[in-house]
Amino acid sequence: MTTVGILGGGQLARMLALSGAPLGLRFLVMDTEPDACAGQFAPLLVGDYRDQRALAEFASKIDVATFDFENVPAESAQWLSERVPVFPNPRALAVIQDRLAEKTLFRETGIPVPQFVDVASREGLEDAVATISAPCILKTRRLGYDGKGQFRIKSEGRATIDAAWKALGAQAETVGLILEAFVPFERELSVVAVRGRDGEFRTWPLTENWHVDGVLSASLAPARVDDALAVTAFEYAQRLAESLDYVGVFALELFCRDGRLLANELAPRVHNSGHWSFEGAETSQFQNHLRAVLGRPLGATTMRGHACMLNWIGELPDADAVLRVAGAHWHDYGKSPRPGRKVGHATVRADSTTVLAQALRRVGEALGRQAQVAPVVEALAGAAS
Amino acid sequence: MTTVGILGGGQLARMLALSGAPLGLRFLVMDTEPDACAGQFAPLLVGDYRDQRALAEFASKIDVATFDFENVPAESAQWLSERVPVFPNPRALAVIQDRLAEKTLFRETGIPVPQFVDVASREGLEDAVATISAPCILKTRRLGYDGKGQFRIKSEGRATIDAAWKALGAQAETVGLILEAFVPFERELSVVAVRGRDGEFRTWPLTENWHVDGVLSASLAPARVDDALAVTAFEYAQRLAESLDYVGVFALELFCRDGRLLANELAPRVHNSGHWSFEGAETSQFQNHLRAVLGRPLGATTMRGHACMLNWIGELPDADAVLRVAGAHWHDYGKSPRPGRKVGHATVRADSTTVLAQALRRVGEALGRQAQVAPVVEALAGAAS
Ligand SMILES: Nc1ncnc2c1ncn2[C@@H]1O[C@H](COP(=O)(O)OP(=O)(O)OP(=O)(O)O)[C@@H](O)[C@H]1O
Ligand SMILES: Nc1ncnc2c1ncn2[C@@H]1O[C@H](COP(=O)(O)OP(=O)(O)OP(=O)(O)O)[C@@H](O)[C@H]1O
Repeated sequence: MTTVGILGGGQLARMLALSGAPLGLRFLVMDTEPDACAGQFAPLLVGDYRDQRALAEFASKIDVATFDFENVPAESAQWLSERVPVFPNPRALAVIQDRLAEKTLFRETGIPVPQFVDVASREGLEDAVATISAPCILKTRRLGYDGKGQFRIKSEGRATIDAAWKALGAQAETVGLILEAFVPFERELSVVAVRGRDGEFRTWPLTENWHVDGVLSASLAPARVDDALAVTAFEYAQRLAESLDYVGVFALELFCRDGRLLANELAPRVHNSGHWSFEGAETSQFQNHLRAVLGRPLGATTMRGHACMLNWIGELPDADAVLRVAGAHWHDYGKSPRPGRKVGHATVRADSTTVLAQALRRVGEALGRQAQVAPVVEALAGAAS
Repeated sequence: MTTVGILGGGQLARMLALSGAPLGLRFLVMDTEPDACAGQFAPLLVGDYRDQRALAEFASKIDVATFDFENVPAESAQWLSERVPVFPNPRALAVIQDRLAEKTLFRETGIPVPQFVDVASREGLEDAVATISAPCILKTRRLGYDGKGQFRIKSEGRATIDAAWKALGAQAETVGLILEAFVPFERELSVVAVRGRDGEFRTWPLTENWHVDGVLSASLAPARVDDALAVTAFEYAQRLAESLDYVGVFALELFCRDGRLLANELAPRVHNSGHWSFEGAETSQFQNHLRAVLGRPLGATTMRGHACMLNWIGELPDADAVLRVAGAHWHDYGKSPRPGRKVGHATVRADSTTVLAQALRRVGEALGRQAQVAPVVEALAGAAS
């Protein structure tokens, strides 16, 4: 009997546990919150990630550890890895936790990135804006997620810089700041990939993503891109995985501009833009993540038709209105509603882009959420089936 | 928050709970055994199905009840249904629990059945064998499963009848006996179907099944039959569901002989011959069963390619050998090994019969279980892709 420990007990841990049950796995989830939603289907250990006693108990009960939450303190991951195998490895995690180290790695491995500058002070910000020029984005180096800890600088004027510093300046000393060029991208893409303990590397088809207010709103797979672009994206992902000796599933988020790719960030875990793989791929990202961290054979990542994932933020819409549409699948994370919170998603799967577009239109109308499905429907209209 | 109560905590309850989690459901499983395998992923209430205190506690914590185990005493189901909605309804359950009542219903609704006679005594058995003539099968009316409680009478000689009576005669007074004509069938088929609370009725594609020693060994979907036969099978299933006012998933097991169908039995629950639907259908039997008992919209039951389920009886073979084959999926029920026990299954899915046959051959070779896959591979060789 193998027990997988998961640090963080949110929807990713929940979906990992549900996907690992058929492999005969048991789970232990650790979270700071006693009502963490993964706890509804797996034993939950409540504790602080910095509490060595809690970590020791966690380590004593598991065979391997992995993450639902990438911002577990790097030292905790390190401490754990001295007691039990931890995948992805703590060094990879540490690099990815810091936007500066991460983007430096992208650059060093020959992967194009938007221009970026480390920002340590108010004057540093002014210099950085002068170097990169507006529009640009000030971001915290660490602990950002779902577009939090970001400030868009639209002009180079003093007032804008003041406002940016006011919003984030205090964090320069705690989590660090980075200024990035704003990329007027045509589309956002992600590579969801998995690397086994033996180095075997597989990717799911490229996914196209739409964000609203910095939060993922919809994903479409396969993305409407030519093969050469997809191959380039896959090469970038593989290069990064190898340089980090990464084991498990990760997502590489990319901007596409004038047909060229620029790396945005790497998410060291199963990723929201890969949720469609439950129904849309032969093997889901969740099951393959577990197979990877356990050193077991990876499953086929081939598509089954076309799939679109719609995120539910804040609260769930009417499930039955969605379930009435053929090919629609529902994922309620068992969380209570809260503004900005990811509480669930739906995946619509179809054998052709035409049928997928129709189904999405029906979902949009049934929920009065035409705006959420519109960009995907539009994208599908431009694609061949 | 809706809690579904499941009577019986085996693999069916386990797979129901795992499939219901994405619908935001909670579960409570009741079983007589504290180590019932569904308890690994859902809260478990240990108690006897006849214990009214346990049943009352169960009823107080759930919104709706359903079954993993069809031989829950009919009175317990009835008692429960006076407190909480129970699907399928206890009357349907009572009919199905008794092979005589069940076969009588088949006959009354115009569904062909093998000849059968109620057997109450030793003389009754002799008369019955004289009426039906050998070969025939003596079965217990109640509590049979996986071919248990059956005795094959191959000749009409006194010695055989003695042996049959010796094996099962004592049960004439407890669970009752029935003698059935032995059907030299060409193939066994099952209709896995679902009926909603509103009467909506859907079937998955017809499934072909192979048994070894009375226990299901392999299932193939879609079955290699012409459309007319499938339509007839679906009509039989719908007629039965309507006459029983059945709600939920069930399986109608059929023999096919000289191109004609004969009903064998109805299983009032998700069924082993529908396990392939996890990967092979748009919506699995597990999720549709839950949607049905909750009165929610049913999901599409369309096929995704071709699928074959292989049962693991007694102990699990090497999982990794199976997982190395593209399109193979693993289902470990988390049970300890025991002779004759269903401990898991694998489903192999492919887009064509050719690829499916190849994959099955590889699985058979990898496990040294060529005999288990052979009849399916042979069947596929005779089918068009
Ligand atoms: N340099 C940029 N140029 C243009 N848009 C950007 C840039 N950086 C971020 N964005 C937009 O904001 C979104 C979120 O940004 P980013 O991925 O950095 O945030 P995050 O908080 O790490 O989010 P998550 O990890 O949830 O994806 C991006 O997907 C993109 O839509
Ligand atoms: N009348 C019959 N003629 C030929 N074969 C039979 C007959 N009855 C049963 N069998 C064989 O035995 C198998 C199991 O029989 P049956 O379905 O009656 O048993 P059970 O114990 O109710 O099994 P389960 O509910 O697990 O399918 C059948 O699938 C078939 O292969």
